Amino acid sequence: MLNQRDRLDLLFHALADPARRAMVERLSRGPASVSELARPLPMSLPAVVQHLRLLEASGLVRSEKAGRVRTCRIEPAALRTAERWIADRKTSWESRLDRLGDFLAAQPEDPKGRE
Amino acid sequence: MLNQRDRLDLLFHALADPARRAMVERLSRGPASVSELARPLPMSLPAVVQHLRLLEASGLVRSEKAGRVRTCRIEPAALRTAERWIADRKTSWESRLDRLGDFLAAQPEDPKGRE
Repeated sequence: MLNQRDRLDLLFHALADPARRAMVERLSRGPASVSELARPLPMSLPAVVQHLRLLEASGLVRSEKAGRVRTCRIEPAALRTAERWIADRKTSWESRLDRLGDFLAAQPEDPKGRE
Repeated sequence: MLNQRDRLDLLFHALADPARRAMVERLSRGPASVSELARPLPMSLPAVVQHLRLLEASGLVRSEKAGRVRTCRIEPAALRTAERWIADRKTSWESRLDRLGDFLAAQPEDPKGRE
């Protein structure tokens, strides 16, 4: 099983490509077949399938085959994992700014600094 | 100048490595020198400097040299750009679920479906 670190590696790597982001954008509006995903992209179907594999390995997308059509869906939990990592950094950055603000507010006024 | 697409490529690529994420985590708690950044990482100083260059190219980190010490800081705007891209996907996914919910709620009840 993947640990959190490997999962974040795969997630952010999956999002670091414009074609894969376009596929995630499309799927966040609803499920699509592989050929629907491929239609707006300037690349061959095998290239799209390669990107799709990487998206599935990252957990961002899952797909199911019914008859001859493979339908792809977004996996919101994976997007949430990436979002949470970023939000945690923001929290620690903002709480540092709060502490800095408290520290500055607690300093006595220095008339010489106002010249 | 980088367009939004290239910026997201660099941002997500920068975040796709555990050492670079560790550096961003450290810097989100406050500025640090390059050697402070390197201390907990299992790699050489030149390797850390390579990662730092990539973080600076992505806009996530900036650094300034004063005398012999280079001090690194987080750039919150870049993290916000990555966060916003993910949040936009979530919004479009959730509004689709809302529309689906409205559609299902508007369907007349079918007693046969309750058998």
